[in-house]
Amino acid sequence: MKRFIILGSTGSIGQSSLDVIGSNQDHFRAVGLAASSSVDKMCEQIRRFRPETVSMSQPEAAMEVRSRMGSLTKVYEGIEGMNEMILSLDADGVVNGLVGSVGMLPTITALENGKDVLLANKETMVMAGRIVMETAKKYARRIVPVDSEMSAIYQCIKGEGKKRIKRLILTASGGPFTDFSLNELHNVSVEQALNHPIWDMGTKNTIDSATMMNKGLEVIEASFLFDIPGEQIDVTIHKNSIAHSFVEYVDGSLLSQISRPDMRLAIQYAMTNPERLPSPYGGLDFSVPFTLTFEPPDFERFPCLSLAYEVLAKGGTATAAMNGANEQAVKAFVDGEISFMEIPELIKRIVDEHGFISEPSIDELIETDRDAKRRISKIVQK
Amino acid sequence: MKRFIILGSTGSIGQSSLDVIGSNQDHFRAVGLAASSSVDKMCEQIRRFRPETVSMSQPEAAMEVRSRMGSLTKVYEGIEGMNEMILSLDADGVVNGLVGSVGMLPTITALENGKDVLLANKETMVMAGRIVMETAKKYARRIVPVDSEMSAIYQCIKGEGKKRIKRLILTASGGPFTDFSLNELHNVSVEQALNHPIWDMGTKNTIDSATMMNKGLEVIEASFLFDIPGEQIDVTIHKNSIAHSFVEYVDGSLLSQISRPDMRLAIQYAMTNPERLPSPYGGLDFSVPFTLTFEPPDFERFPCLSLAYEVLAKGGTATAAMNGANEQAVKAFVDGEISFMEIPELIKRIVDEHGFISEPSIDELIETDRDAKRRISKIVQK
Repeated sequence: MKRFIILGSTGSIGQSSLDVIGSNQDHFRAVGLAASSSVDKMCEQIRRFRPETVSMSQPEAAMEVRSRMGSLTKVYEGIEGMNEMILSLDADGVVNGLVGSVGMLPTITALENGKDVLLANKETMVMAGRIVMETAKKYARRIVPVDSEMSAIYQCIKGEGKKRIKRLILTASGGPFTDFSLNELHNVSVEQALNHPIWDMGTKNTIDSATMMNKGLEVIEASFLFDIPGEQIDVTIHKNSIAHSFVEYVDGSLLSQISRPDMRLAIQYAMTNPERLPSPYGGLDFSVPFTLTFEPPDFERFPCLSLAYEVLAKGGTATAAMNGANEQAVKAFVDGEISFMEIPELIKRIVDEHGFISEPSIDELIETDRDAKRRISKIVQK
Repeated sequence: MKRFIILGSTGSIGQSSLDVIGSNQDHFRAVGLAASSSVDKMCEQIRRFRPETVSMSQPEAAMEVRSRMGSLTKVYEGIEGMNEMILSLDADGVVNGLVGSVGMLPTITALENGKDVLLANKETMVMAGRIVMETAKKYARRIVPVDSEMSAIYQCIKGEGKKRIKRLILTASGGPFTDFSLNELHNVSVEQALNHPIWDMGTKNTIDSATMMNKGLEVIEASFLFDIPGEQIDVTIHKNSIAHSFVEYVDGSLLSQISRPDMRLAIQYAMTNPERLPSPYGGLDFSVPFTLTFEPPDFERFPCLSLAYEVLAKGGTATAAMNGANEQAVKAFVDGEISFMEIPELIKRIVDEHGFISEPSIDELIETDRDAKRRISKIVQK
C-alpha cells in the first residue's frame, strides 16, 4: 500500500489523482489532502477518502471544514499548515497539483522530508529547477512527472542513459488558437482562450496553453528534469494529443509514448512506476483508421514559446521572472485588464528589466517571482 | 571491439550489416562472411572487410572465390562449411541474414556454440520458435531481432517486464497492393508484386510483403521472441513506415519506436544494444509538417495474414508447414507458374493436409518443411 499526500486536491490534477486512488484502493491511499478554499469539495473528499489530515490555505475555509468534518480528520490551515501536514504524515509521495509559484516550497519541503514528489506543478521546475534537482539528489528522492508530456519522456528513457539522448521533442496540442492569424490573435476573448480543444486543466493552465507558454514552461521543466539543454529540446504541434512526446537517441531511433489523452494515465504511472497496473484510461483503437499530424510551431504568433527558450538559455533568475510575470499577466487577461497579445509583451518587459542574478538562492527566486508580479500589477493599473 | 559473423553477406541484410560495420570500424569487425553464389560481391567484401574466414554454399562459387582470394582468407564450402565457420571463429554474434528455412540450423548452431544471434531470418522463428528460444535460454545467449518491427518492440520493452504487456501492435506498410480490390489482386503481375513502396528487401521478402505473409511471419516471430500469444498481437497498416510497431501496456500506455525507414538502424541497434552509437540513419524531421496514418488490415484480401494467426494458434508443425509451403509458392509465383491469389490457396491446402505433430523435434520440423515444399512443387507441376 502506497500512501500519498495530494496538494491541490480539489483542482484538476488533484481530482484526477483521487480518481486513480479510488480505482486502486488495494494499492494506494490518500493520507493527506490540501486545498485552498473549496470547502464543499474538500468535505466530499474527506467523506470518501478518509484522509488522516487535511489542510486549507484560507483560514476561513479551514474553519468551516473543521466545523463540518472535525470529527473525521485533523484540519490544518494556511501555507504553514500545508507544510506541517507534509512533515507530520508518513507518506511515500506527495502529488503536487498546486498551480503557480506557490507549488515550489512544498516540493522542497517534501524532498527534504524524505518523500518523493509526483510533480504536476511545472512552475516549481521553471522557478527553481536547479535547486529542486539538487535537493532531490541530496535527499535521494525522486521527482516523478505527472504531466502527459513529461511522463511520456520519463517512460521513453527508462532503461536508457542520458548520454544516449540526442534530443527531446515535446508535443503540443497547440491550444484553441493554433490556426489563428496574428491579427486574429490580437482580438481573442477570454472565453475563446478558456475553450481548450482537448484537455480540461483549470483556468491558468488553459490560458498558458492558448499562449503556448504552457509548452514553454514544459521546455524549461524538461531541461531541468532530464538534464538536457534547451538547444536539444524541440516542440511539435500535434493537434490529436495522442503522441505525448518523443525522445530521439543518438543513433536516430525515436521512442514515443502514445495513448488517448487522459491525465489519469500519467498520474497512475507516476504512482505505480516502475510497475504498471491495469487501468481504464489510455489505450488506442487500431480497429478504426486514424491519422496523427505533426507540424512545426510558429514562434512569431506564439512569442511566449520563444521567450521560454530565451530565459532557459539565460538561466539564473530569468526563468522565475518569466514565470511570475506570466502568472500575473494571465490573471490580468482573465480579469479583462489586458489583451491576449499583451501577455507576452508584458512578460518580455519584466524579464528584460528585472534585476538578474545568475546563481540565485531560494529566497532570491521567491523575491524575483513576487517582484515580477508586483511590476505587472503596477503596469496594468496604470 | 565486437566481432560478427554475417550469414547472407551479399544479400540485402548482409550488405546493410557490412555498411554499419564499415561506418563503425572502431567498434565492430566482420570476422566471417557467408553467401550462396555471388562470387563478385563476395570478393569485393573480402577485399574491403578482410574477414578471417568466408563460406560459399555453392561448391563452384567456393572454388572460384578460393582461386581469386585464397591468399587473403580461408574459404569454406557448402552448408557444412558455413556451420564449420560458425563453430571455428571467435565471435560475439552471428548476424543471420539468410532467407528462408535454410536459416534455422545455423541459428541453433550459433546459440549452442555460445554466440548471440542477430536475427533477420524470421523463418527460423516461424519454423522452430519454441526450440530456438529454449536453446537460447539453455546456453544463456540472446536472440536480438534485426528487423524494424521486432527491433521496435525490443526497444520499447526495454526496462519493462513481460507481465506488464497487454498487447503488441505490429505496423505493416501494406505492400504495393494495400488498396487493390480482391478482383485486382487476382490479376497482379510478378513485376507489380516486386515493386515495394518502401523497403528494398530481396525477392522473397518483397513478395511476402505483397501477400502480407511477411507480417504473418512477424506475428509468429513476435509471439515466440517475446513470449506473447497471438491473441495479444495485432497488426495495423501504416503506409508511411515511420512508426515501426507499438507495445501496449496493461495501464493503457503505448510505446512506439519511430524513425525514417532504414534497416541499418535496427541492425546497428542489434549490434550496439544496450548501448547506442551515433548514426546517419533514422531520425525524423519535425521542421516540416507530416502525417502518420493507421488503418486495420483486411484479412479477406490478404488471407496469408489470417493463415499465420491460425497456424500460430495450432502450434506444433503447423507454422513450419505454412512457412515451407509459402517459400515454394512464392517461387512458383515468381516463376510464373501460379497466380498471386493462388499463393494463399496452396499454402492453406498444405497446412490442412500435412501430417501434424504437436511437439515436433528439429528433424521433424525440417521434414515438415521439405515435405511442404515437395507437395507444392507437385501441385504446381500438374
